[in-house]
Amino acid sequence: MKTGKEYMERLQAMKPEVYAFGKKVENLFNHPCFRPPINALALTYDLAAEQSDLMTAASPFTEGRIHRFLHICLSPEDLVKRAQLGNFLTPHHGACVGARCAGTGALNALFATTYEMDKKLGTDYHQRFLTFLRHAQEEDLACSGMVTDAKGDRSLSPGKQSDPDVYLHVIKVQDDGIIVRGAKAHQSGAAIAHENIVVPTTSMGPDEQKFAVAFAIPPDAPGIVHIAEAPASNARRFGGDERDFGNYRYGVHGSTLVVFNDVFVPKERIFMCGEYEYSGIMVQRFAAFQRLATAACKSGHCNLVCGAAAVAAEYNGCEKMAHIRDKLTEMSFQSALAFGSAIAAGSLAAVTPSGVYVPHALMVNAAKMQAAKAVWDASQLACDIVGGIVCTAPMGKDFDNPDIARYVDKYFKGKADISTEDRIRIVRLIEYLAGQSSVVPTESVHGAGPPATQRLMIRAATNIDYLKKCARVMAGITRGEA
Amino acid sequence: MKTGKEYMERLQAMKPEVYAFGKKVENLFNHPCFRPPINALALTYDLAAEQSDLMTAASPFTEGRIHRFLHICLSPEDLVKRAQLGNFLTPHHGACVGARCAGTGALNALFATTYEMDKKLGTDYHQRFLTFLRHAQEEDLACSGMVTDAKGDRSLSPGKQSDPDVYLHVIKVQDDGIIVRGAKAHQSGAAIAHENIVVPTTSMGPDEQKFAVAFAIPPDAPGIVHIAEAPASNARRFGGDERDFGNYRYGVHGSTLVVFNDVFVPKERIFMCGEYEYSGIMVQRFAAFQRLATAACKSGHCNLVCGAAAVAAEYNGCEKMAHIRDKLTEMSFQSALAFGSAIAAGSLAAVTPSGVYVPHALMVNAAKMQAAKAVWDASQLACDIVGGIVCTAPMGKDFDNPDIARYVDKYFKGKADISTEDRIRIVRLIEYLAGQSSVVPTESVHGAGPPATQRLMIRAATNIDYLKKCARVMAGITRGEA
Amino acid sequence: MKTGKEYMERLQAMKPEVYAFGKKVENLFNHPCFRPPINALALTYDLAAEQSDLMTAASPFTEGRIHRFLHICLSPEDLVKRAQLGNFLTPHHGACVGARCAGTGALNALFATTYEMDKKLGTDYHQRFLTFLRHAQEEDLACSGMVTDAKGDRSLSPGKQSDPDVYLHVIKVQDDGIIVRGAKAHQSGAAIAHENIVVPTTSMGPDEQKFAVAFAIPPDAPGIVHIAEAPASNARRFGGDERDFGNYRYGVHGSTLVVFNDVFVPKERIFMCGEYEYSGIMVQRFAAFQRLATAACKSGHCNLVCGAAAVAAEYNGCEKMAHIRDKLTEMSFQSALAFGSAIAAGSLAAVTPSGVYVPHALMVNAAKMQAAKAVWDASQLACDIVGGIVCTAPMGKDFDNPDIARYVDKYFKGKADISTEDRIRIVRLIEYLAGQSSVVPTESVHGAGPPATQRLMIRAATNIDYLKKCARVMAGITRGEA
Amino acid sequence: MKTGKEYMERLQAMKPEVYAFGKKVENLFNHPCFRPPINALALTYDLAAEQSDLMTAASPFTEGRIHRFLHICLSPEDLVKRAQLGNFLTPHHGACVGARCAGTGALNALFATTYEMDKKLGTDYHQRFLTFLRHAQEEDLACSGMVTDAKGDRSLSPGKQSDPDVYLHVIKVQDDGIIVRGAKAHQSGAAIAHENIVVPTTSMGPDEQKFAVAFAIPPDAPGIVHIAEAPASNARRFGGDERDFGNYRYGVHGSTLVVFNDVFVPKERIFMCGEYEYSGIMVQRFAAFQRLATAACKSGHCNLVCGAAAVAAEYNGCEKMAHIRDKLTEMSFQSALAFGSAIAAGSLAAVTPSGVYVPHALMVNAAKMQAAKAVWDASQLACDIVGGIVCTAPMGKDFDNPDIARYVDKYFKGKADISTEDRIRIVRLIEYLAGQSSVVPTESVHGAGPPATQRLMIRAATNIDYLKKCARVMAGITRGEA
Repeated sequence: MKTGKEYMERLQAMKPEVYAFGKKVENLFNHPCFRPPINALALTYDLAAEQSDLMTAASPFTEGRIHRFLHICLSPEDLVKRAQLGNFLTPHHGACVGARCAGTGALNALFATTYEMDKKLGTDYHQRFLTFLRHAQEEDLACSGMVTDAKGDRSLSPGKQSDPDVYLHVIKVQDDGIIVRGAKAHQSGAAIAHENIVVPTTSMGPDEQKFAVAFAIPPDAPGIVHIAEAPASNARRFGGDERDFGNYRYGVHGSTLVVFNDVFVPKERIFMCGEYEYSGIMVQRFAAFQRLATAACKSGHCNLVCGAAAVAAEYNGCEKMAHIRDKLTEMSFQSALAFGSAIAAGSLAAVTPSGVYVPHALMVNAAKMQAAKAVWDASQLACDIVGGIVCTAPMGKDFDNPDIARYVDKYFKGKADISTEDRIRIVRLIEYLAGQSSVVPTESVHGAGPPATQRLMIRAATNIDYLKKCARVMAGITRGEA
Repeated sequence: MKTGKEYMERLQAMKPEVYAFGKKVENLFNHPCFRPPINALALTYDLAAEQSDLMTAASPFTEGRIHRFLHICLSPEDLVKRAQLGNFLTPHHGACVGARCAGTGALNALFATTYEMDKKLGTDYHQRFLTFLRHAQEEDLACSGMVTDAKGDRSLSPGKQSDPDVYLHVIKVQDDGIIVRGAKAHQSGAAIAHENIVVPTTSMGPDEQKFAVAFAIPPDAPGIVHIAEAPASNARRFGGDERDFGNYRYGVHGSTLVVFNDVFVPKERIFMCGEYEYSGIMVQRFAAFQRLATAACKSGHCNLVCGAAAVAAEYNGCEKMAHIRDKLTEMSFQSALAFGSAIAAGSLAAVTPSGVYVPHALMVNAAKMQAAKAVWDASQLACDIVGGIVCTAPMGKDFDNPDIARYVDKYFKGKADISTEDRIRIVRLIEYLAGQSSVVPTESVHGAGPPATQRLMIRAATNIDYLKKCARVMAGITRGEA
Repeated sequence: MKTGKEYMERLQAMKPEVYAFGKKVENLFNHPCFRPPINALALTYDLAAEQSDLMTAASPFTEGRIHRFLHICLSPEDLVKRAQLGNFLTPHHGACVGARCAGTGALNALFATTYEMDKKLGTDYHQRFLTFLRHAQEEDLACSGMVTDAKGDRSLSPGKQSDPDVYLHVIKVQDDGIIVRGAKAHQSGAAIAHENIVVPTTSMGPDEQKFAVAFAIPPDAPGIVHIAEAPASNARRFGGDERDFGNYRYGVHGSTLVVFNDVFVPKERIFMCGEYEYSGIMVQRFAAFQRLATAACKSGHCNLVCGAAAVAAEYNGCEKMAHIRDKLTEMSFQSALAFGSAIAAGSLAAVTPSGVYVPHALMVNAAKMQAAKAVWDASQLACDIVGGIVCTAPMGKDFDNPDIARYVDKYFKGKADISTEDRIRIVRLIEYLAGQSSVVPTESVHGAGPPATQRLMIRAATNIDYLKKCARVMAGITRGEA
Repeated sequence: MKTGKEYMERLQAMKPEVYAFGKKVENLFNHPCFRPPINALALTYDLAAEQSDLMTAASPFTEGRIHRFLHICLSPEDLVKRAQLGNFLTPHHGACVGARCAGTGALNALFATTYEMDKKLGTDYHQRFLTFLRHAQEEDLACSGMVTDAKGDRSLSPGKQSDPDVYLHVIKVQDDGIIVRGAKAHQSGAAIAHENIVVPTTSMGPDEQKFAVAFAIPPDAPGIVHIAEAPASNARRFGGDERDFGNYRYGVHGSTLVVFNDVFVPKERIFMCGEYEYSGIMVQRFAAFQRLATAACKSGHCNLVCGAAAVAAEYNGCEKMAHIRDKLTEMSFQSALAFGSAIAAGSLAAVTPSGVYVPHALMVNAAKMQAAKAVWDASQLACDIVGGIVCTAPMGKDFDNPDIARYVDKYFKGKADISTEDRIRIVRLIEYLAGQSSVVPTESVHGAGPPATQRLMIRAATNIDYLKKCARVMAGITRGEA
């Protein structure tokens, strides 16, 4: 197994064509949009040594232990561990390790489906895939899973689009391989992976054979172009310093639009090519794996938000207030429901003919749906707890400007024994974690006073004695009360 | 009454000391953090001419009509109109007109409370205040309301803080006025207002007389320093261009920390000075007005989000889907509850001895609390509707780079007859409106597939026929069914 | 205006054909299913004298004041008052005054729509209606509104049903009137009203003219048969005594299925007959009025539940606990949103050509939808607060049985100074108000411990220190904490 | 292992002293409040033969397989199976098998805790307990778990009550056993079990040794008196017939207040007596087991509600409507979260020194809390789907009364090919399952029209085109749209 350093060295040898914020990226390792996710990915290598039981597994296909992200899940226990891995990791990076995380789903879906294709159709996809899998496991590669197409008009199926390229497809079949065109969108970590595992995004019909294609390809294959996402949190990275970034070390998602501009895929890396009737089951299995991983990851994210909000409450001097405690408990509750259902999806998994266990369909979808709710609840509760400062905190550089340094230090201070800089750091982490950029949602909470104030006023404005009297009269209770 | 141009001319003559992103701001009108809210404020002047019934009122204290933001509410109808004004305006600026909006509350609270103080204590605050009010109405000034102190340790009252300056207070009383020290935090539009109306932030006790102080002061009075908020959405304004900013014209909140570094307030502008027993009722009334205004404003914000999400759904080709329609309806429902309760707070308002009507306590607090819920619900629903692109959209400049322009145009396209740039513009507007910067909350919705997919899977994974059979057996229904 | 006694005397002179629980009802005044709603209706008469401003109005069609339930709403203020009336009344009866409440909507919808019909079609419905209205106002009649048909297969429109009778319709037109057949379902208080005002239940098409019929008719007209609802709470009235009934005096809804078995309606009481194009607007207006009334009523119901839960908490000795207080506040908040939107629906009402104001469509529908949520929330919170005893309380007679009286008195006791009987009375009131009969929903709350216990355990089971550490590390905060 | 018939024979030989609805119960088997839960319990015996894997287990303490309700959980798998058992069973009885279900928790908590007591204190409780356990397993006894005391004033601990008897305690220690006094409240199935396993209800302090007592006792031991719960659904059983009862075969909870009127417990059945420091851990473990069981059971209940609502929708002719489907999916989702977290609580269980696995604290509490939410959501959604008829349906006997039989048959009919009686049966089942007795909560949903209608109106009343325009203008999109 490899170290974070080795992961980076292998990546450094690759030359993907990447654009971000309007310019070509010359060096991923220096770039504000890519260095943080590289750090997060390196962490998945380095932590594996420390957390061997959780993060590594014994593979039947290679000798010695392998990274769990590359493991084929051959028991419910494997799926439970996979969920625990995601839940454990996220509070340590607080961002995205998509360049490896989604790989598990793609590898397992391909393992199970190529097995069945070969049995039924007499193809040799499963053998090709096993060869690739062994290579990936032995070299401890960072393998991303690549699914979502550009999609064009969402009311039309792949074969009905005015521009067929909005779904990735084969444009030419050669003896030694195929040429593909199209794009995969929202590809977390695609540019910083060693390999991208490409599978179809939906079920295809008989007229859509060319869209039924799966393969593995490195992100710097000729003809591949990456165009980086540009959310406000990434824009922020182009000014300021670590004090402003919240999760300064890891906090960038690093996803790209991956354009396949007539890219050659060698035969031995092709795992589906035209077998449209298997595209549906392939993507359904990928989705089941990925929803388990995502639910567990987002539950971990919520747990981290809970921790950050607790720190912020402490720095504000109000961590002992009943409503603060109750809000932290609520975060933990909502998070537990998502994680619990993901664990259950593993525990109740069903086996496929290949031996791969696929997460329980009801549980895994419930888990993912709940995870999204839990994250938004946690964001709202964290913004409520931390206060309006999550919108109005100054820049790190304001602490360096001698004209105003004493004011920011004095007036952004919370509890006496906590440094103002530390308070601002936790505020920025919450800004990052809660995904807050423009101020309206948070301002909606705090403007005109925080909800706790309104609850107090609502309690005071409710004539409870009058209502109690109505109730006693109605119940036939005649005794007076204090 | 004045025009937007006249508002700006008066502002241009002022020289507030303002810092933002670590540097002194030489010209508010050129600055990415202040030009947008200046535009929004100018809009409140210019729209008043078009929307006379809603935006202006007849004042008993001056001749002719005045701007409703400066109006003393002497009937429930005045309060209903005030709520309607906020609800109407926000979809037109989508940001904040705090430099005027909170002024209504401060003016009304002072009107009512100085009246009672004079009656009871024989002071002349009400007369002083009336003189100021007439001036503000006649000159059509932008008057902000200034309440929230820096607050330090939230578990300690003003008099118990280790640094007394975290609550604004009088440090010296002179014949011609007072000297005050402290800071007001989160002051929306304070630096771009003509006058700031300062009132206490909480109820003060007998030992906290020096904190019981209210007055009016221009934002460029000697000793006042403004330090700008620095959220990620403002950071984004330092790179890119209007295509990236979403609400490019108005979309900055413009709030500052306002430091009072031993500031002189002339006697005729002082409206409370030591009468601690009136500080509670003053802030309670301000809060009631401001919650009415905020609830109505945020409901307008939700309505705008609803419109933006509907445009995005149209551009994606999916505006006719049942679940999309239902989500838009849900936004409208949650928004209506907030606005409705704000209207009710006006309709059921109670009169004070001065003739000022104060919003109904239960209704106005319910309205504000619901408004925060509605905004977060709208944010989540909008991010759900628009899709993962709200995280992963490229920069405007990517459309200009000849190496990739054709890819971004081709692969970020939705419906065939909508330009990609327009699609990205609405996506950026939603990023702005939903307050999304770092990608986790939205990615939690769309990563591993959007919720609508999971609902479909949950439906499919529920053995409804088996459960129907259990129910029929239990109910004693013996006939077979298809 | 009349008294409750006079209402009952007029009712006593009527002889409706009523069946309940499988038997013919000989005397409504003695019957457990009808005496309580008669009491509630009488209360609406008697309280009018005490609450003149709220419960009476000056009618332009008669001399002197009339009951507000019979008032035509000719200003937004009238609608606001109508909402306040419902909200005030419900905590006093805790049940249903449907025999009058829905009448307001039917009368107003007919007033507005017959006016327009006459203008457009040259009919004389409005004059007929005015004659009836004057009679109703002068005699202070209890007029119910009758809308909902039996409906048969809900996927088919009235004209497509296999049995046309499932929608009320004209089967014969005579010189002196019409013969109608069909049934109106879920008719609250129809059997105990003096008059039933019948309007169509939905928009009718050109082929459905016979279903477009509106008229007034007394509940004992020949051919009308009432069949009473038989919910578990009514079943309970056939055993036990007032100690078991919760709201013993008023607590029965009193609704019936009203069968029109070829009933003659005299010409002067017919207000629509075939004008299908007005059926939609008629029912839409009725719905707007009725949703305003219902939202206000259910908000009053929630307020009563809040009072009852507060009494129960006091009797249990736990009214000061933070989570109990917060639950009562939550009830009040949810209730206020419904009532507030109803008030806003009146305040923002639009005028029709006849002068009738119709509640604001968005607000009134939001209000009604919120009211249903508020009631269910209140039920759940009340069951949570009162405890499992709401399922497991004994019968009143158990207190009389000398073998066990001392046990029930001893072991169902709460706070020392409260009699056990009083505690059981409030429990039974909550059982009634929360609609609890079978025990599952409440048992789901309390079985295996109430939610407050689980929250405590969740808090304890959340490793908050570990999560705080993750957050501090991520934020770059290096100082240790206690 | 025994059959349902054998369970009943053993029960018939017992003579517990039981009172219900004010009278002594002479024969449990004939009594409307006890026959249904006896049927449910017999079902747990008879189904065990059919569902061997799920419902039976191999015990290390006896030969052959035993009923899983009596099984000591010595692996996470045992806990997962226990959760699955509850989830499977409930849709078959729809009521309560508390006379066995809670026994698992009591037996496991005692196994684990007596083991530790003996190790630490040198007592012989574990041996006594093992003897009892073997007997119970071999005889396949129905063992209830008895925990909740009467509790008196909830703000006072056991030792501070004005009447000490409100917590069960030892009043005399003899050589051959102890005498206990007090009462256990809300005891599901206590009177129809073969043995009741009694444990303390909370953690006791040094001054509360006499309350720290655990033992096993048959429900007919001298001095024990049972007083039955009397909810409205049980009251209904005293009139009408099976057509009215919904879940006519099993649908009664059967809980009693169990009075211990100075009851002798023989030494060999005492498992704790004064060791107050173990009372906390004992009840905490019991709670963990019981919350796992309850969460799984209530999820099964929700699934049954989902099935019943689907049947009702079919009978109404509207099962294909999008909003109906979405509501059924929502029920399944909420139910899955509860069950999933219960499964996770088993899967992630921790082992105790005795070898017993105790459910994961965070997961099991989240599961139980979610279960209560799921049940209330399911109740509300089911009442929404089924329609107002759940309040207003007539009695079975109305179908037999020749004067009205044709009306009820005709006008309560839904879809043409479904008999009206079947429709009423499913309505009554939902009334039972949703716990509806008095009509307010359901009437709040359907009165003035069901929520789907309001959503339609809200959609219509939202000026989406205006809002879209505001959004386009703000986003800088200049092209016109259709």
